This record gives sequence, C-alpha cells and structure tokens, in this order.
Amino acid sequence: MEKKPLILVSNDDGITSPGIRHLIEAMTQLGEVVVVAPDSPQSGMGHAITIGNTLRLDKSDLFPGVEAWQCSGTPADCVKIAKHHILKDRRPDLVVSGINHGANTSVSILYSGTMSAAIEAAMEGLPAIGFSLCEYGWEANFEHTLPYLISIAKEALTKGIPEGVALNVNFPAKQTEPIKGIKICRQAIAKWQEEFDQRKDPNNRDYYWLMGNFVNLDKGDDTDIAAIEKNYISIVPSIFDLTAHHAMAGMNKNWDIVD
Amino acid sequence: MEKKPLILVSNDDGITSPGIRHLIEAMTQLGEVVVVAPDSPQSGMGHAITIGNTLRLDKSDLFPGVEAWQCSGTPADCVKIAKHHILKDRRPDLVVSGINHGANTSVSILYSGTMSAAIEAAMEGLPAIGFSLCEYGWEANFEHTLPYLISIAKEALTKGIPEGVALNVNFPAKQTEPIKGIKICRQAIAKWQEEFDQRKDPNNRDYYWLMGNFVNLDKGDDTDIAAIEKNYISIVPSIFDLTAHHAMAGMNKNWDIVD
Repeated sequence: MEKKPLILVSNDDGITSPGIRHLIEAMTQLGEVVVVAPDSPQSGMGHAITIGNTLRLDKSDLFPGVEAWQCSGTPADCVKIAKHHILKDRRPDLVVSGINHGANTSVSILYSGTMSAAIEAAMEGLPAIGFSLCEYGWEANFEHTLPYLISIAKEALTKGIPEGVALNVNFPAKQTEPIKGIKICRQAIAKWQEEFDQRKDPNNRDYYWLMGNFVNLDKGDDTDIAAIEKNYISIVPSIFDLTAHHAMAGMNKNWDIVD
Repeated sequence: MEKKPLILVSNDDGITSPGIRHLIEAMTQLGEVVVVAPDSPQSGMGHAITIGNTLRLDKSDLFPGVEAWQCSGTPADCVKIAKHHILKDRRPDLVVSGINHGANTSVSILYSGTMSAAIEAAMEGLPAIGFSLCEYGWEANFEHTLPYLISIAKEALTKGIPEGVALNVNFPAKQTEPIKGIKICRQAIAKWQEEFDQRKDPNNRDYYWLMGNFVNLDKGDDTDIAAIEKNYISIVPSIFDLTAHHAMAGMNKNWDIVD
C-alpha cells in the first residue's frame, strides 16, 4: 500500500473558523493531515512575520484524530514553525491554506494572509494552494466547494505544481446553478478605492476605519474576476519573484545614473 | 518658476527612526515633503493592512518646516491614509519609503514593510521607491547614501518609473572604499533558513523566537545580492502582479480538471 500523502493545513481566519474546518474535512479524505493555524483571526496580515516579538504554540484538540496546533503568529509564521519546528524531517507533500471567508482575487492576494501562507510554502519549495470563497462572513456556505477541494488537491498531488508557484484558488459564492468548471487565470488589474470613515471616540479624539470599494479596471476575459463572475473557479498560478523583468532593459537604457 | 514636486515619505521602522530622518533631509532638497509614517516600529509587517481595527492619526512636530503625521497602522495603511485622507486632491509626484535599517534584498521584499509602502503606492499608480541600507541596528551609518538618495529620486522625477513598478533600492553598508555605482538587478533566488529558539517563560510555559539565516542559492551576477556584495547600489524594479504567466500554458495542458 502506498504511503498516504502528508498535507499541512493553515489559514488566516484562525483555527476556529468554519472555513478551515471544511478544508480539513476534505483533506483527511486524501492523506494524513497536520494543522498549524493562527489562534486568532489574521485577515489582512499579508506576508507579515513576527520578528520583534515571541510566539506561542499550543496543541489543539478541535479536530478529533487530526494533529493540530494553534500559534499566536501570522499565517506565514504558522508555515515557518510547521516546517522548521513541528514537522522538521517530515516533508509535506502539499500545503493548503483556507478556506478563506472572502475573495482573494486580483490584488487582494497581496493583503491576504491565506495566500501568504501558501506563498511562504512555495518559498520553501513545497507545492502549495490557497483556497478562498467569494463570500465574506462567518456563516458563509462552503458546501459546494467540497468536491473541488478534493479534485484540485488530488491533481496537485499527482501532476504537481511548478516549482516556486503557489496556486491562488477562488470559489464563486454558492449560486442556484452549480459551478461551471475551473479556469486557469491571470490576476486581474483591479484596485481598492479607499475611503476613511472618521469618527470621534468617547473622549472626543478622532479615529478612523479603513473602508474600500473594489474597482475592476480590467475588462479581459482571462482574469480571475472574469472567471468568478461567470460562476467558474479561478486558479491563478502565483510567484514570489517580484522582479519587473520587462522594465529592466528600459531602465538600463534611459537612466543615466546606472552602470 | 516651476512648481516644486510633492514627495510623500513613509517607512516601516517608525517616525522616530534615524533612517526616515535621513530620507526627509534628502527629499527636502528636491521638493515639498509630506511625511506619513507609523507611530511605532513595523518591521516584518509585509503588506499587512488594518481591517479589523481602528486607526489613529496625529500631527507630528518632529521635522521643523515639514508637514508630518504619525499613524497607528502599518506602512501600507500609512500610504492609503496619506493618499485618500491627508493629501486627497494633492497627487504626489513621488512616494519614497525608508531608509530601512537593514537589507531588503531578494525575498526579503515580501516581508518588508518598507517595500510594501512603495508597492502600495505603485498600486495607486504613483511612482514609488523603497530605500534600504544593508546595515541593521538603530545606529546604522546612512552618511554615504545622501548623494545617491538625491540622484535616484531626481532621476525618478525626471525620467519616470514604468507604471505599476516600484523600485527596490538597497545600499551597501558603509565601506572604506566609496560606493562603486548603481546596478539595475533582478531579485536573487535566496531564502531564509528558519530556526525557532524554544525557551521557558517564568511560568514554565514554552515560547519561541523566530530566527533565520539568509541562504543565497543564486550564483547569478545580475542579482541584487551580487551587486551589494561588490559595493554597488542595487535597484530591482518590482511589480505587484504575481501571476506566474510562464506556468499558465503548462497547467492548461497538463491539468485534466481545468476547462
């Protein structure tokens, strides 16, 4: 009998979130699961790591029969402590993160703790996938994602993911019609149009809430947002080499101060 | 007389750090400066934003003659609140971040609050540069960077930076020999080899410090690390579209489950 694959599960909404519970349920059908997730919600933490402070790590009994740990750090911290302290010589065959409560399409990938966990794993040379559902809120409906969590993870385990690439998978919110299929996409060129809601605290001092409207400026039909709008699952293969290779020759030519 | 350019300055070490003071000193020689920086150190915050919490914003008198604000948020928050609340219709001609106390070469860009401020500005369509010095510590010597801060910012103001690109500039630590020049580079393929230092607190409970050794696996001579090692300033033009365009065709061909 073949050895079961080892699957590391993390997220950014924290170990108590319904999203990670759905992901664990799916992954236990495919392999041996180890969970290392934040002990509190870490949405919007991007690729933050804990360098000026200490970390706590405790065993969790939330998932019967599954080895699970909660960590006081960020999603990227969780992957680091999983790889270098908890698993040590046990190399995961796959690292999955999520299911995030809310979309991580387009530039949201940069703010996303869910995707930073996956990208951190890719930086470690591990095959990695971040899963997000385009429905915000604790009571989001994850039911329709189950067969796809399994088929996507199975494909990653058998076909592999290119080295240094993490998959950014977004599921459309549950519709009346079933999901139409899966599309490989590029990240849409969209942006958050920010506003700040200025309020007075009980001591009459100002404070602010960051608010934003998502504005899609990208009319291409090959983007993650276009796929989601048509009730497809989007997969954006994503990298951590941020070099603007296309800009290097131009700068070498036009900037007089460079050697 | 031409209107002086408007230059927004931020950082991640906080508004009291020597690094930002050097950057402000340089930028006031080129234009009108507005400072919006974190009120406390935010190293390692990556592209985190404050979404589950409120923000404070207060005027600062640390820099005589310069409009300055301190914000309780992350570097990315500072750029957002600068653009959408403080500056509003005053569009910066340049956004600069730093000077970071410590290198942000290679994959460190992903953990760097300094560079996330610059990348956030690029996402807003603004020309942006993050400056870092490859010397860690509060008492780092920034003296040799001054003429280059000015020449690089001046070149950015006159020649421009390609749309959607932020420049990741790293200065070598001060050597006996003067800096040799400036190289346009790619991000080195290196990684942090993590270790966790496990300790006992006074109540005999475990806690951990994240420690890491930087391992450069990239022997290319066109990388940022190679430039720094030869006492050159490295400039990596950097993007926020993380799509692994090279991986899309292969996945479309090999993954049977995609449409």
